[in-house]
Amino acid sequence: MSETAYARLEGRFRRMALVAEAEAVLQWDWSVGMPAGAAEARADQMAELKSIRHGLMCEAAVADWLAAAEVEELSPGQRANLREMRRRWRHQTALPGDLVSALSKAASRCESAWRVARPAGDFAAVLPKLEALLALVREEAAAKAAALGLSPYDALLDGFEPDGRSAEIDRVFADLEAFLPEFLQRVLEAQARRPLPATPRGPFPTAAQKELARRFMAVLGFEFEHGRLDESLHPFCGGTADDVRITTRYREDEFLSGLMGVLHETGHALYERGLPSAWRRQPAGDARGMSLHESQSLLFEMQACRSRPFIAYAAEALRDAFGPDAAWEPENLYRLYTRVAPGFIRVDADEVSYPLHVILRYRLETALIAGDLALRELPGAWNEGMRRLLGIVPASDREGCLQDIHWYDGAWGYFPTYTLGAMTAAQLFRAAVAARPEIPQAIGRGDFAPLLGWLRETVHAKGSLDSTAGILGAATGSGLSADPFKEHLAARYLA
Amino acid sequence: MSETAYARLEGRFRRMALVAEAEAVLQWDWSVGMPAGAAEARADQMAELKSIRHGLMCEAAVADWLAAAEVEELSPGQRANLREMRRRWRHQTALPGDLVSALSKAASRCESAWRVARPAGDFAAVLPKLEALLALVREEAAAKAAALGLSPYDALLDGFEPDGRSAEIDRVFADLEAFLPEFLQRVLEAQARRPLPATPRGPFPTAAQKELARRFMAVLGFEFEHGRLDESLHPFCGGTADDVRITTRYREDEFLSGLMGVLHETGHALYERGLPSAWRRQPAGDARGMSLHESQSLLFEMQACRSRPFIAYAAEALRDAFGPDAAWEPENLYRLYTRVAPGFIRVDADEVSYPLHVILRYRLETALIAGDLALRELPGAWNEGMRRLLGIVPASDREGCLQDIHWYDGAWGYFPTYTLGAMTAAQLFRAAVAARPEIPQAIGRGDFAPLLGWLRETVHAKGSLDSTAGILGAATGSGLSADPFKEHLAARYLA
Repeated sequence: MSETAYARLEGRFRRMALVAEAEAVLQWDWSVGMPAGAAEARADQMAELKSIRHGLMCEAAVADWLAAAEVEELSPGQRANLREMRRRWRHQTALPGDLVSALSKAASRCESAWRVARPAGDFAAVLPKLEALLALVREEAAAKAAALGLSPYDALLDGFEPDGRSAEIDRVFADLEAFLPEFLQRVLEAQARRPLPATPRGPFPTAAQKELARRFMAVLGFEFEHGRLDESLHPFCGGTADDVRITTRYREDEFLSGLMGVLHETGHALYERGLPSAWRRQPAGDARGMSLHESQSLLFEMQACRSRPFIAYAAEALRDAFGPDAAWEPENLYRLYTRVAPGFIRVDADEVSYPLHVILRYRLETALIAGDLALRELPGAWNEGMRRLLGIVPASDREGCLQDIHWYDGAWGYFPTYTLGAMTAAQLFRAAVAARPEIPQAIGRGDFAPLLGWLRETVHAKGSLDSTAGILGAATGSGLSADPFKEHLAARYLA
Repeated sequence: MSETAYARLEGRFRRMALVAEAEAVLQWDWSVGMPAGAAEARADQMAELKSIRHGLMCEAAVADWLAAAEVEELSPGQRANLREMRRRWRHQTALPGDLVSALSKAASRCESAWRVARPAGDFAAVLPKLEALLALVREEAAAKAAALGLSPYDALLDGFEPDGRSAEIDRVFADLEAFLPEFLQRVLEAQARRPLPATPRGPFPTAAQKELARRFMAVLGFEFEHGRLDESLHPFCGGTADDVRITTRYREDEFLSGLMGVLHETGHALYERGLPSAWRRQPAGDARGMSLHESQSLLFEMQACRSRPFIAYAAEALRDAFGPDAAWEPENLYRLYTRVAPGFIRVDADEVSYPLHVILRYRLETALIAGDLALRELPGAWNEGMRRLLGIVPASDREGCLQDIHWYDGAWGYFPTYTLGAMTAAQLFRAAVAARPEIPQAIGRGDFAPLLGWLRETVHAKGSLDSTAGILGAATGSGLSADPFKEHLAARYLA
């Protein structure tokens, strides 16, 4: 009996997945350990692997198989997989091969330049490479827009957040923008009426921070047999589902940001590890999209690990790691961990002001993609937006438009998923506690099994077998809403 | 004007080289940092990349281009490159695609099992996977033998050592086997008449050893902008020419083996870095073969770094690193570094007994490939060979047939290149000192520029533009001979 078209597609997508996994290892190595002099050679290697994947997708036979598989008898899972195959096929085949390769190399080059320009706060130094990259990204957006029948920005967004649309984001962000600045003022006023929490005295030795990070990762459910913790300039979760690699950065004068980075990335890692292994290396087996991905990291970092029960549990571990300090008193620690203080750096932001950082980037990147803003005007527009949204202006582009890797690495249309993720996290965590009321108490004992078990079932194991809206609806009983997030903020910061 | 066939070949070989570079990074990561649970997934990734390379080589167009390029007007370098292209093409196209993939996966699986079996000294545990692997290697040997018109063993050897033939190796090894056992006895007797050198007192902290290793690497000429030093179970030099990565292992009770491993691998790394960048990613730009590669590591480790001038220089660095100890007295250190003591472990062997370890492996692997020896008889045959050649028998397979990664990783036909390399190293070093008499004194000041400069010109920059014999002949004025090696041993150990 000859192979079905669907079976041929599975074979082909498996090959592309294997190449993508190799790319993920190369990308991780690039960020974590590669010597600087190897950047150009590595960029060439990554571009070649991307070209190979593109070639595997664009062969005429794939289009024939996609058409033929539609009329074959398929299980519901296979049907979902076929749908996701076609989605990827439409994205990939929209781009000519030389654009794929050029984008990959331009992103590598711009990222390399950013690594030097960022600490120096020198936006002008990276501007030419960023302009070259953005020109190619706009080409990509236009080509995908034509193929997918979307606006250029939505065509990029759809690559990170399947079915994500800016019209919906505009609606949600308008809601948050109307709510947050005033809410933030009320939180700051309420906070000002209470005494300042005590700050633990450093230094916090890096070795002790690493040990603590590994301890918390294990508590949350991270499997070191299938992953690593390393250091990088910009924390990330990379690698593959069988080898999930997270990174953080350490400062000896302050441990909170490094530790929270670890808890955040562990949330991403747990999602990857929980993906359905029966669908490994098939589109249906991959993470659904970046808003769900971010919901998992924020659910652990913000919802679970900044809760009073967990902080009481963590206080002991902190004392073990760094020695006695009055600041480890649980209520003090809770106030420290939930302190609201608008600042310049997105990744260090409290959860009240965080969406304002995202809204700023979203407005800027939509304007840049549309051609309504020139890159040379970005620093000014950034600072003006910071003033308007957060009431503060960075003194240097280092703490302004140079702080995030995304644009410099070619990830345009990605930022809004952070705030979609924050809202999703609040909605999921509420549903998790409703379904398993023992969760908060268990977290207080360092037992994440009930929470992780619920997430495994309702989110992780779904992979991309259902849509984001479908997964969220089944898990929480409703579509995405900002209300649980707003209510969470009110309960935590104004109660 | 349409592209020439030769230009098309260059483009195609560049693509294959980029994929091979990605494989090298994955292989390095496998050995240095990959979590154990990712082994199966990684094996699949590496097999896929190998299959892709195989597919790129086996397209019918490549054969046409090779034929057409023969009659095109080419520079001498292009002509040499075309010759090497054809050599690789003959090796690759000899194998069906499914054998390439099966070999890669079987090697990864066997290597994983070996990592567990080796510390346990449990040969039986790895035997089934090794049998599966050897069966495929014998298929590979038979297929290449038919395509290349060589014996099965020579067909494998030719993959590591172009133009290497067992008839020649048999001749050289018979010579060494006649010479070495008696010579070894004379060295041991002479050594016994002198007092034992003092041994430095440990412990030798790993951090200090690492610092020392990096210091010596820099002295030899290693560029950390284009490479790394890491740890692995089995020291190796991997990565790519623009990103050369060496490894070692540390023991706190003994630093010599770790340090010598570093000096050895640095020799390999310097060769890779010195390859002609104008021919990067072309066959003519690659290292010539494993005997020349090994000659570079042994030239640094054995010829240069165990010489009296270097040891006098190193003594001060050792005192800096580990504190004062009477054992750092240069003449004592020299006797310690050049002490001959037949042991079980090849990589720790002195240079007098080392070839006997290689001869043992060569005899065993030729018999195994020929089907004259069964793998289940390997431990017995190993121990019998050790008794005959070195007069000692290991108590466990851990120190016997499990000690080396090569067979378990699919590298059959590789071992003899170590001793070809030792002979080549002696011959090259003698020629280097004859050409630049200042070399020994410079080494005594920690100045390796004269030696490295000569090697860069005569060996490294040649890449594969000439044959091994051609490079050696131009550099030393004669073909490979065991005499310089034997004279070196006599001068160092019996003078």
